[in-house]
Amino acid sequence: MNQPSPEKNDRKPRAPRASKAAAPAKPEAGKNGRAKPAPKAAAQPAEARGADNARRKPFYSRTRRPQQKQKNGPAATPMHIIPLGGLGEVGKNITLYECQGDMLMVDCGLVFPDSDMFGVDLVIPDFTYVAQNKDKIKGVVITHGHEDHIGALPYLLKQVNLPVYATRLTIGLIKNKLEEHGLLGRTKLVEITPRRKFKLGCFSIDPIHVNHSIPDAVAFAIECPAGIVIQTGDFKVDYTPLSGGPTDLAAFAEYGAKGVLALLSDSTNAERPGFTATEKKVAQSFANLFRRADKQRIIIATFASNLYRIQQIIDLAVENGRKVAVSGRSMANNTQMALELGYLHAPEGVLIDIEQLNKYPPEKIVLITTGSQGEPLSALSRMASSSHRNVHVGPGDFIIISATPIPGNEKMVTKVVNGLLLLGAEVIYESMYDVHVSGHACQEEQKLILTLTSPKFFLPVHGEYKQLKKHAMTAESLGIPASNIHIAEIGQDIRLSADGLETGEPVPAGAVMVDGLGVGDVGNVVLRDRRHLSQDGLVIVVATVSAGGQLLAGPDLVSRGFVYVRESEELMEEARRLVIQCFERCRAERTHDWNSVKTRVRETLSAYIYRRTKRSPMILPILMEV
Amino acid sequence: MNQPSPEKNDRKPRAPRASKAAAPAKPEAGKNGRAKPAPKAAAQPAEARGADNARRKPFYSRTRRPQQKQKNGPAATPMHIIPLGGLGEVGKNITLYECQGDMLMVDCGLVFPDSDMFGVDLVIPDFTYVAQNKDKIKGVVITHGHEDHIGALPYLLKQVNLPVYATRLTIGLIKNKLEEHGLLGRTKLVEITPRRKFKLGCFSIDPIHVNHSIPDAVAFAIECPAGIVIQTGDFKVDYTPLSGGPTDLAAFAEYGAKGVLALLSDSTNAERPGFTATEKKVAQSFANLFRRADKQRIIIATFASNLYRIQQIIDLAVENGRKVAVSGRSMANNTQMALELGYLHAPEGVLIDIEQLNKYPPEKIVLITTGSQGEPLSALSRMASSSHRNVHVGPGDFIIISATPIPGNEKMVTKVVNGLLLLGAEVIYESMYDVHVSGHACQEEQKLILTLTSPKFFLPVHGEYKQLKKHAMTAESLGIPASNIHIAEIGQDIRLSADGLETGEPVPAGAVMVDGLGVGDVGNVVLRDRRHLSQDGLVIVVATVSAGGQLLAGPDLVSRGFVYVRESEELMEEARRLVIQCFERCRAERTHDWNSVKTRVRETLSAYIYRRTKRSPMILPILMEV
Repeated sequence: MNQPSPEKNDRKPRAPRASKAAAPAKPEAGKNGRAKPAPKAAAQPAEARGADNARRKPFYSRTRRPQQKQKNGPAATPMHIIPLGGLGEVGKNITLYECQGDMLMVDCGLVFPDSDMFGVDLVIPDFTYVAQNKDKIKGVVITHGHEDHIGALPYLLKQVNLPVYATRLTIGLIKNKLEEHGLLGRTKLVEITPRRKFKLGCFSIDPIHVNHSIPDAVAFAIECPAGIVIQTGDFKVDYTPLSGGPTDLAAFAEYGAKGVLALLSDSTNAERPGFTATEKKVAQSFANLFRRADKQRIIIATFASNLYRIQQIIDLAVENGRKVAVSGRSMANNTQMALELGYLHAPEGVLIDIEQLNKYPPEKIVLITTGSQGEPLSALSRMASSSHRNVHVGPGDFIIISATPIPGNEKMVTKVVNGLLLLGAEVIYESMYDVHVSGHACQEEQKLILTLTSPKFFLPVHGEYKQLKKHAMTAESLGIPASNIHIAEIGQDIRLSADGLETGEPVPAGAVMVDGLGVGDVGNVVLRDRRHLSQDGLVIVVATVSAGGQLLAGPDLVSRGFVYVRESEELMEEARRLVIQCFERCRAERTHDWNSVKTRVRETLSAYIYRRTKRSPMILPILMEV
Repeated sequence: MNQPSPEKNDRKPRAPRASKAAAPAKPEAGKNGRAKPAPKAAAQPAEARGADNARRKPFYSRTRRPQQKQKNGPAATPMHIIPLGGLGEVGKNITLYECQGDMLMVDCGLVFPDSDMFGVDLVIPDFTYVAQNKDKIKGVVITHGHEDHIGALPYLLKQVNLPVYATRLTIGLIKNKLEEHGLLGRTKLVEITPRRKFKLGCFSIDPIHVNHSIPDAVAFAIECPAGIVIQTGDFKVDYTPLSGGPTDLAAFAEYGAKGVLALLSDSTNAERPGFTATEKKVAQSFANLFRRADKQRIIIATFASNLYRIQQIIDLAVENGRKVAVSGRSMANNTQMALELGYLHAPEGVLIDIEQLNKYPPEKIVLITTGSQGEPLSALSRMASSSHRNVHVGPGDFIIISATPIPGNEKMVTKVVNGLLLLGAEVIYESMYDVHVSGHACQEEQKLILTLTSPKFFLPVHGEYKQLKKHAMTAESLGIPASNIHIAEIGQDIRLSADGLETGEPVPAGAVMVDGLGVGDVGNVVLRDRRHLSQDGLVIVVATVSAGGQLLAGPDLVSRGFVYVRESEELMEEARRLVIQCFERCRAERTHDWNSVKTRVRETLSAYIYRRTKRSPMILPILMEV
C-alpha cells in the first residue's frame, strides 16, 4: 500500500461532499488558487501509484480475496467519480473525476429532448457543480466528436472557461461548434494523440484508439494516486475497419496487467448478444447496391459525422465513374472540414457542387444527404415532400437510407420512406440489406474489454437503466462480484479506493433545457402549461369592471386550440351567460376580491365545459379594473 | 361471358361517381328504396355468375391471356371497391363494395392519433359517403374484434343504423363497445359462422376461418354478379395454433379454383421475409419462464384481446399451482366476457380477484395485466411508477412483457421497463425470448394466399404505403402482371370487372378526429393552434380603451408556457413598454380601427420577443372598449 498521504478522514463512509472537499490531501489547492501545485504530486511515476498489486491476478480470482484484510490496513487515497449525465439516458455524457483536490472532466454532451419536452431544442447538463469547482478542474478531455459527447461544450464554456483536450478531428468539430456560438478565440483547444500521455493536475491521461462510427475516437486510461480508471467512451471492436486499425486491445490489456481500479464502459448495445458487424460488411452491400442501381441516380442518407461511410461512398463513386455531391448543412460542413484535415480523400473533380447536379445524367451521380432519421427539416425529408430546391426525386432514383432509426424516430423515417416511394423512387431502408452497422459494442465486445482490463470496480455507463443493468449482469457473469459493480446515478459522488466503493452526498446535477436563446428559463411550470395547452387549448375570459364590481365591458370569451368556434357558437354563448351569472352573484354577495371572482369564474366554466365536451382547456380569467 | 345486364355505360373509363350511381343495373334500388330487389339477382347460383372461366387456370398463365379479346366482348357487370380507410396507415380499416346498386361494408375501425394530433383521442373514418349511400348499404360485416376493425362502429351507428354481422366473440366485443356508447338495444347484431354463407343484397358472403392474434377472426369471400372478391382481414397461417385449427387454406383454394376476381390482403408484415412463428413457440417460452420464475410472483403484460395468450397463461398457472388475477379495465372486461362465451376456460377457483392478491405467497400468483405498450395510464405503467393500488412491484417479481412495441411506442415501453427494473424486479422484454409472435402474415404466407386464390386483380391493403408497395412487389414476383396490381388510395372508387380495373372520381373520404365528446370539431385550425401553443406558449395583451383610443386600463401582459415569468421580469417589462408605445403611436395617428391596432401590437411584440429569445409564442391582443 504505497499511497501518499493516507487520511483517516477520507474513509468516513458517506461523508458529506463539503467535508470531503474541505479536507483534500493537498490543502494548498484552495478555491481561489489557480496556482498549480498538483503536477508535483502527479509527477511521480504513474506505475508507482495507486495500483493494488493483487489486481494483477485475473479478476475472477479476486472474488476470494479477503476484503477484511484491506480494510484494516492504511486507507488508500480515494478517487471520486461524479457523473453529471449519461446514466439512465442516451446522451448528455459528462463525468467528473477528483483526486487529491484536482478535478478532470470527461466529455460534455447534450441530449435531444423527449417528446414531452414541448418546444425544447436541446437539453444540457446542469453545470452548477462544475461552476462551484471551476478552480479545481484542470481541463475537459473529449472521447469523440458526437453531439452527445461535445454538444454542451459551448454552454459550459460560456459559464466556465476551461481548456479542452481532444483528437484532431474532434477538435475540428468542436471548432465548428464554438464558431457558431462566437466562442472560438476564447477557448484553449489542445490536440491529443492516442498513446501520448498528458498530465492535468494529478491525473495522467492516456488516450487509447477505439473503433466507433466516427474517426478519431478514443478511450481514456486515467492514472492518479488512487489508481487507474478506464473510461471507454463510445466504442466497438472492428477487426477490419476501413481505416485507423482495430481498437487498441493491447493498450487495454497493458492496463489490465498493471491493475485497473475501475472501468466505465459503453452500455448502448448491452442488450444485444454477439458482436457488432464490421463496417466492411456495409462496404460490400454498398458495392452490390451500386451495381444494382445501374443507370439510376444514387442518393444515400447517412449521419454527417460518419466519415467512414462517406469515404466508402466516395470510393465507390470513383470506381463507378460517378460524381459526388452533398446535401444538408451539417453534411456540407463536415465533409469540407474532413477533407481539409485529411479524414476524407477524393480525387480531383469527383466532388461537385449540388447546384451542378442537373448537368450530369443520373447514372453519373451519387448524392450524399442528411436526414437518415427522418428529421422533418432535413434534406431527405424535403426531397420526400418534393420541396428540395435542387433535388427532385422520381422513378430514376435509387435511394439508400444507411442508418437505423433511433428509438422514437421510427414514424418519421416511415413517413420519409413512404414519400420517396410514392414519388416512384426505389428505396433501400431495411436492416436486411446490411446498409448500416452500429457504432457500439455488443455483449461479446463488452466482455472482451471487461476481460482485458480486469477491473476491480465496474460502472456501466452511457445508456438507459435497462442497458446499464444488462451490462452489469454481463460483468457479473464474468465473475466480477456484484458488490464491486455499481449502476451509478447522475449527481452521485462515488468514492473509489483500493478499500471499496462508497457513495457520498449527491452533488447538484440534472438537466437544463435550452429553448431558443434561453438556457434554463423553461422549467416544469412552463412545460406543464405547454402540455396543458397542447392537449385542449385555452379559453380566455376578459372583462372590464368598476371598483364596485360592475361589468363595464365584456365578458368576452376568446379561445385557441379548443374547438372550431364557428361550429360551437351555442356552447360559447352559454359559457358567456354562465360567466355573467358568476359576476352577478359575486356582486350580489359583495365579493370584491378579484382573485375569488376569478376562481369562481374558472371553476364554473371548467365544470360546464367538461360536462359538455369532456375536455379541460386551460381557463384564464383576466379582469381589468377601471 | 355470362354476365347479366351488361351496360356499355359502365365501361366508360374514369366515369364520374355520380353517373355510375345513376346508372345501376337495377334501377329499382333507388335512394329511398329499402325494398330489397337485390336478393332476386343474387339468388342465381354463385357459380353461374361473375366468374371469368379463364380464371380457373393458374394465374401465371393469365399473363399470356390476350386482354384485347376480352375488351371486345360484352362488358361485364362491374363491382366497385371503395376503401374509406386502412391504406397508407395502420388502422382505420373500412371498405365499401358496390354491385348492381347494392352496397356492403367490411370492417369499421379506428386509428390512434399521430403524435402531432395534439389532444386527439382517436381518429375515425369520414362517414359522409356512407351517409349519402345509407339506403344502399345492406350491412356491415366484421372480420375480427380488434379496435382497428371495430373501433369506429359506435360513431358509424350514431349516424347510420346498419345491421352488423360478425362471429360470436367479435359480437361480444362489439356489444361491450356499444354498451359504453348507450347504443346496445338499437343495433341489429347477427352472429355468423365460418363457411356458412349469408346474403346481403346481391352479395353472398362466405366467412373463412383465419389465424390471428384474437380468436374468431375470418376472411370473407364475397360473391356478386361481377365475380368473387376475397378480403383476408388480418391473418397469418399458423399450422399449430393453440385452438381453432389453422387458417382454412382449403376454402381459399376452393375459391382459387372457382376463379377470384380480386384479392385484398393484409400487408402489415409485407416487409418481413419468411413465416410468422407459431403461437406454440410462445407457449414453450412461457413454460420455461414459469420454471425460471420459481418462487417469484409472475406478472405478464399482454394485449387484452389476445385470448390465446391469456389461455396459455391460465393453463400454465394451473400446471404450476398458481392462482390467476387480472389487472386493467379492458383485461378484466375481456376475460370476463370470454369466460362467459366459452373462449377462455379456467378450473374452478383458479381465477381470483385482484383484491385477494396479497393473501397468497408470491409463488402462488400469476397476474395478467394491460400496459404491454407502455401506455402511461395502464396498469403496468402504474406498477412501474409505484402508483398501482393493489400491486407493489419489488425484487420478488418476475415480469414478462409479452408484446412488441408498436412503432412510436418504443420510448414508453423503455420507460416502463426501466421503472420495473429500478424497483428490483426481473423483467423479460426482449424478442430473443420468444414471448411474443406477430398476428400477421409474413412474405411466405402472403405468397401462399396469393397462390391459393390466384386472383385476377390484387389490391394490397392494411398498411403503410411502404408495406403496400412491398406486398405489391411480392405479388408481382409471383407473376401477377403489374397492370393488375393496384395500390389503392382512401376514397378511390375502383371499378373492377372481368374487363379490367379502372378508377373513377374519388368519393368524400378522410379522417375525423375525436376529442372527448367532440367528433370532428377539432380540425386543422385547432390542431395548428395547439401545436403553436405547445412549442412556445402564448402571450396575451389586454387593455381597456376609450372609444377615442385612450388607454383606461392595462396593457397587462399575461403569459403561459412561454418563460418562467419571475425570472424574466425585465423582458416582460420592456415588452409592456413597447405595447404602450404602440398604443400611443396609434392614437397620435388617429388609428381607431382596433384590428389595425391589434395587428401592430402583435407584430411589434412578436419581433421584439423573437429578437430577445428566438422564440415565437402565440400573441393574442385583446382590446375592450368602454
